Amino acid sequence: MSAEVGLNVVRICLPDCSEEELVDEILKLNEDPKIHGLVLDLPIGALSGRVINSVTPEKDVDGITDVNLGRLIRGDLSECFVPPAANVLTVGKKVLIIGATGSLEAALQALLKKKGMITISSQWLSKNLKELTDLIVITTPEPEGILAEWIKTGSTIVTYDQMLLSVESSSRWITNQQRKRWDVRALKLQPLSPVPSDIEISRAQTPKAIEVLAKEIGLLAGEIESFGRNKAKVKLSLLERLKEHPDGKYVLVAGITPTPLGEGKSTVTVGLVQALGAHLGINSFACVRQPSQGPTFGVKGGAAGGGYAQVIPMEEFNLHLTGDIHAITAANNLLAAAIDARILHEATQSDKALYNRLVPTINGVRQFSPIQLARLKRLRVDKSDPSTLTPGEVSNFVRLDIDPSTITWQRVVDTNDRFLRKITIGQSSTEKGFIREAQFDIAVASEIMAILALTDGLADMNKRLGNIVVANNRKGQPVTAEDLGVSGALAVLMKDAIKPTLMQTLEGTPVFVHAGPFANIAHGNSSVLADKMALKLVGEQGFVVTEAGFGADIGMEKFFNIKCRASGLYPNVVVLVATIRALKMHGGGPNVTAGKPLTKEYTEENLKLVADGCSNLQKQIQIAHLFGMPVIVAINVFKSDTEAEIDLVCQIAKHSGAYDAVSCNHWAAGGRGTVQLAEAVERAANEKSTLSFLYDLKLPIVEKIRTIAQKVYGAKDIELSPEAQSKVDLYVKQGFGDLPICMAKTHLSLSHQPERKGVPTGFILPIRDVRASIGAGFIYPLVGTMSTMPGLPTRPCFYDIDLDSDTEQITGLF
Amino acid sequence: MSAEVGLNVVRICLPDCSEEELVDEILKLNEDPKIHGLVLDLPIGALSGRVINSVTPEKDVDGITDVNLGRLIRGDLSECFVPPAANVLTVGKKVLIIGATGSLEAALQALLKKKGMITISSQWLSKNLKELTDLIVITTPEPEGILAEWIKTGSTIVTYDQMLLSVESSSRWITNQQRKRWDVRALKLQPLSPVPSDIEISRAQTPKAIEVLAKEIGLLAGEIESFGRNKAKVKLSLLERLKEHPDGKYVLVAGITPTPLGEGKSTVTVGLVQALGAHLGINSFACVRQPSQGPTFGVKGGAAGGGYAQVIPMEEFNLHLTGDIHAITAANNLLAAAIDARILHEATQSDKALYNRLVPTINGVRQFSPIQLARLKRLRVDKSDPSTLTPGEVSNFVRLDIDPSTITWQRVVDTNDRFLRKITIGQSSTEKGFIREAQFDIAVASEIMAILALTDGLADMNKRLGNIVVANNRKGQPVTAEDLGVSGALAVLMKDAIKPTLMQTLEGTPVFVHAGPFANIAHGNSSVLADKMALKLVGEQGFVVTEAGFGADIGMEKFFNIKCRASGLYPNVVVLVATIRALKMHGGGPNVTAGKPLTKEYTEENLKLVADGCSNLQKQIQIAHLFGMPVIVAINVFKSDTEAEIDLVCQIAKHSGAYDAVSCNHWAAGGRGTVQLAEAVERAANEKSTLSFLYDLKLPIVEKIRTIAQKVYGAKDIELSPEAQSKVDLYVKQGFGDLPICMAKTHLSLSHQPERKGVPTGFILPIRDVRASIGAGFIYPLVGTMSTMPGLPTRPCFYDIDLDSDTEQITGLF
Repeated sequence: MSAEVGLNVVRICLPDCSEEELVDEILKLNEDPKIHGLVLDLPIGALSGRVINSVTPEKDVDGITDVNLGRLIRGDLSECFVPPAANVLTVGKKVLIIGATGSLEAALQALLKKKGMITISSQWLSKNLKELTDLIVITTPEPEGILAEWIKTGSTIVTYDQMLLSVESSSRWITNQQRKRWDVRALKLQPLSPVPSDIEISRAQTPKAIEVLAKEIGLLAGEIESFGRNKAKVKLSLLERLKEHPDGKYVLVAGITPTPLGEGKSTVTVGLVQALGAHLGINSFACVRQPSQGPTFGVKGGAAGGGYAQVIPMEEFNLHLTGDIHAITAANNLLAAAIDARILHEATQSDKALYNRLVPTINGVRQFSPIQLARLKRLRVDKSDPSTLTPGEVSNFVRLDIDPSTITWQRVVDTNDRFLRKITIGQSSTEKGFIREAQFDIAVASEIMAILALTDGLADMNKRLGNIVVANNRKGQPVTAEDLGVSGALAVLMKDAIKPTLMQTLEGTPVFVHAGPFANIAHGNSSVLADKMALKLVGEQGFVVTEAGFGADIGMEKFFNIKCRASGLYPNVVVLVATIRALKMHGGGPNVTAGKPLTKEYTEENLKLVADGCSNLQKQIQIAHLFGMPVIVAINVFKSDTEAEIDLVCQIAKHSGAYDAVSCNHWAAGGRGTVQLAEAVERAANEKSTLSFLYDLKLPIVEKIRTIAQKVYGAKDIELSPEAQSKVDLYVKQGFGDLPICMAKTHLSLSHQPERKGVPTGFILPIRDVRASIGAGFIYPLVGTMSTMPGLPTRPCFYDIDLDSDTEQITGLF
Repeated sequence: MSAEVGLNVVRICLPDCSEEELVDEILKLNEDPKIHGLVLDLPIGALSGRVINSVTPEKDVDGITDVNLGRLIRGDLSECFVPPAANVLTVGKKVLIIGATGSLEAALQALLKKKGMITISSQWLSKNLKELTDLIVITTPEPEGILAEWIKTGSTIVTYDQMLLSVESSSRWITNQQRKRWDVRALKLQPLSPVPSDIEISRAQTPKAIEVLAKEIGLLAGEIESFGRNKAKVKLSLLERLKEHPDGKYVLVAGITPTPLGEGKSTVTVGLVQALGAHLGINSFACVRQPSQGPTFGVKGGAAGGGYAQVIPMEEFNLHLTGDIHAITAANNLLAAAIDARILHEATQSDKALYNRLVPTINGVRQFSPIQLARLKRLRVDKSDPSTLTPGEVSNFVRLDIDPSTITWQRVVDTNDRFLRKITIGQSSTEKGFIREAQFDIAVASEIMAILALTDGLADMNKRLGNIVVANNRKGQPVTAEDLGVSGALAVLMKDAIKPTLMQTLEGTPVFVHAGPFANIAHGNSSVLADKMALKLVGEQGFVVTEAGFGADIGMEKFFNIKCRASGLYPNVVVLVATIRALKMHGGGPNVTAGKPLTKEYTEENLKLVADGCSNLQKQIQIAHLFGMPVIVAINVFKSDTEAEIDLVCQIAKHSGAYDAVSCNHWAAGGRGTVQLAEAVERAANEKSTLSFLYDLKLPIVEKIRTIAQKVYGAKDIELSPEAQSKVDLYVKQGFGDLPICMAKTHLSLSHQPERKGVPTGFILPIRDVRASIGAGFIYPLVGTMSTMPGLPTRPCFYDIDLDSDTEQITGLF
């Protein structure tokens, strides 16, 4: 950090003393190392050349040594009345201060000085406050209308007296912000009983303006881009600014094998940070996934948490957000369109015609674009002059020769549209008979979503996008997005989506919402970038809580083996969410089905079922221990749970090696209901833990799959279909053998059979097929069939959703 | 307007006078009608109960009459140090001021007062400045750290002295803002020669922060929602605030029949407002269409204007913008998914099963949703208890009975994906054989885009969305989005898209970007809402310039007959854009084709071709005169145009009844190159003009089509195919006969044959088919085949597009 702590600025206000005395005083202050700046608050007549020249430039707060006062004050100063703040907003990222540059600033300062005001030069400030990005405009008293102009520009106006404070506090603030507790104003909660609907709770709370929250947590004004009042994207430059700062503690929320209703990992995640931040006063951040918009109108509720543990405003969280999924859709579908169009163009043109079109002569010049040169390099053609390629090289260059039967890249929409699960495309006569079967997936299933979640920056994202393999050519070699010439355009479409979105919890603590890849065909975790930024922002003593999709056997395993490998981040604690309901199911309770009322086993005390069901909890604790992590079991309490049931689970959990086990009541009580969990997490985070990965990437693909199946799922062995085996062979041949494994398995059982609850043993895990997301960087074996496009039920949620055109409020959303 | 002009606040600062004298002074001021408020700037000891009580609440600036000073000052004031600005940001849309509510504000005021400071109560301010939305926090001098807290909250800090000015100027500002010239700071242009690429020009100019521009043009802080630094959505509440204000002048930019290269209507539109705003100092707004993102990566350049007449930053204009088209895509596709899912569910379930699912019993209660009650009403079933419906009524209610062969609602993507022009959907076994042929259109072809462009507010949009006809039932009756129960959800998805997006030109003048419907199957004009808001903002003497797609025979005709009918707005002037190139083509010059060099007829002087081609210009002028509008011909000058050619066109244009004809050089010179046009427009706008529509809506559909064909296109007659005739009959039967007509005709000729240039005569216009956009509110006859899905060429633009990961700058975009 280049800014100094506690700048001292001395104001020289001795109008009645002689020039001699003034100069003496100035020279003395010049040499005082504890004085960082001088301000000459003198009548214009006292500002002789000798006085001005006696100020050393290092301490020249006024910038007066640069100003030829006489000339400027005699000159036409009308230009000075142009509101200057607007100019300086463009100067750059460091210092924003009154005046534009050079003569305009000097003229304005001279004018203010003439009017008895005091100014500060941008030069001095920039030297002394290199990291300052807040706009400061200084003047006192009000200079006849100028301030009014500035007020209109939207600048922060600070008077001279305030400035001294501000200069000092800004520099201290910049150096200390990420090392200290935030001044986050908690939003007060007054939970009602019975608990109202999620949207009613969300709407009853007024969030802080997002700029306010951003400042509270130490973000600089230039580091955020607001999207309306309640959301802001945070720039990646933050990571550069705070790169020397230590990371905070890193907490993963995972769950036991859930019922189809879900067991509340998201609410625990949000409740936990509400407790840490708003109740214990600890810097803390939740990093959550952006939900797909499709299910919002189908059968699923929102994904912003629930009850009194939510991200707000929940409707903005669940709809559009800041457009990231829309950007993914656009990028995904551009790539898809490029594949089919290319096949058509190659099939209907000669090598020469293709070459003339791909490398046209424009204004007499013919040259390759950078992305074409990259392709030539991959083809080992070391030429840059298009006229020198041999016919064979031309043919290799222009023909991707895609084998349509090998295309794995699908189109996407962020809508539950079951009729697009299997379609035939290209049936218009303009496509000349090049029809083929294809499908649409839901947008979050796009590999580009997985890339967004795993990338650590723009350069890395560009590379991953280029590496996407969309098909094989007829020789069995992979064809990439870069081969299609489209990867730069994909990066352009994704350039804003890469920035995490800042929102807040119901209690006013910060949340990053970023990425939401599928938890089966992808890894189901929110983004590496959001976690990294949050860890820097909370500082060494702070906490970042993130969530892994599905049960711990899937979400947590992928979190460690895929996400942590990509990020290099090591978590400190695992929170394992369990419900009495799910435990009873594992203990032999009747089936739990969405939309059907629960049987009495679930609504009345039944310690036997609970005790038996804890086998699943024990197994999931053991899985976390495989990775070397301490585990806190968090029981997400429902109204019908009894104290005896809860106590029993806590007892068994601790007996099974959990660091602690506590009940959580965040849904009904907000952060106050999760304080016990927060305290346990804080204690556990201070224990020493070391992450160990489950397998070495250099192991053969099949061995990696077997390791996960046996150690995590408890399978006896695995069995690959011939198709799966041939895919494994192909990927190894193509050079993709060293990637981590992303299992696509049901989350409703540790095994591949959803109906087998508890801890199934002795099963052979069948691997039906193996696929690859090369850009994202993993191989995904398919255990059974995975639906990548949900449908709409007979009565979708949308029947209840409406917009009140007077209040602009949404009704009926969750 | 409820705010008063010039509030006078008197500061009472008489510390040495007696209580008696003080009270006398106060009582005198209480009764003085010219004094609007009192501030007691007194030591705490002087604030006796008697003094305080003598202030009438109406004039109590301090809010002191509400404060129990003794109790508060003795109490624990630590709460006061909570940054209060964050609280007040939530108070509402009217007044934002220090303090939260009630006791906290009072306590804080008391504290400040104790410290010798002066405060203003939110109550007083809200009474006196009902329309003020800027945050004002008042205190002087700095109260030991409190200001620093506030600075962090991002609030505007105003000292007491400044406040007096601010109170006065704010009230004056609010009442006068829209009646006076804006203080828009123009961005200086220094055009280079040769003119650089569009993106280089755009990047070389740093736009003003959008909040700055918003303030300059009189938008209140609470009326905008920023989307990053350069874009903001503007709330529709603006229309309510300014409803009493007069509209500005309304200018339509249209064009002659263009070459396939386009003749520069967008650049003229932008250049004209740059001239009006930045050079003539007249309040002026451009209202332009949001371009489809698909073509950005295909063959077309950007749509932000070009050269030195652009909307900036052009890459943000062309990519994603504020997500409106993404919202349209989401809404469009939700409706599409709802149609097919409904057909499947109806086909596979009994009436009873459908009814049980559509109207389920939840917690023992069974009721219709509001949208279902609306359907019952349309079915003339006057019941609200689900248990009372007869089996026949249940059947009618649950079965939309959609005839799949009549579905006109298509899915959309904002990508040039030619392989989706004709597809077969529903081929997955989960859809049980309900396969059918379908298609994807480009997103901007969605009827929802046309609705967005034509709506005048939320309530109207909701209604139009509900009215969308997606198919007929097997009885030939229309099935609407409301019948599907989805129209409320569509409105929810569109709730932000309905707000226009504010951006700026290269010279810093304001632009609304909003909606961009197809110019053939829809009406091709930007939104009614943006125009309305801009007309209020510019004020009576200001100008709003908007653009109509295609040639005047199509875009302008629809502008008047469809858009103006919907909006009730009447334009003052038509600017008709012509190029020497297009005129030569009409005069018999060789074909002009994209991608091929121009022949010498176009690059060398040829007065004969120009003179002959002016027939098309004359005809388009006559068309504008049909609507009663004065016409200014704007010649968009290219480098190869000669003075003689330009003079000839001006002469012929004026001879043909144009109010004026001028040459424009905005592409190379920015607004400076269009000053002459701006002056001509200003003069013409002061002429009296009266809009007359071309046809009465009550005329039969066929007569309306014939009127357009004969009067506008110059056709001898029209000829309907049997299919077209039967559609006309159907629409009349369905009650849609009174809608305006939106012709889907080529823009490359006045006739239906693109190769017929100049002014074709004697032709019979064939009407191949007739379709309807009932939500948008028009019937669209198809003259020939209209492609609604562009394709990607062999070498799409994306080959050159890349993102620099260090600078985050886009390269190769246009």
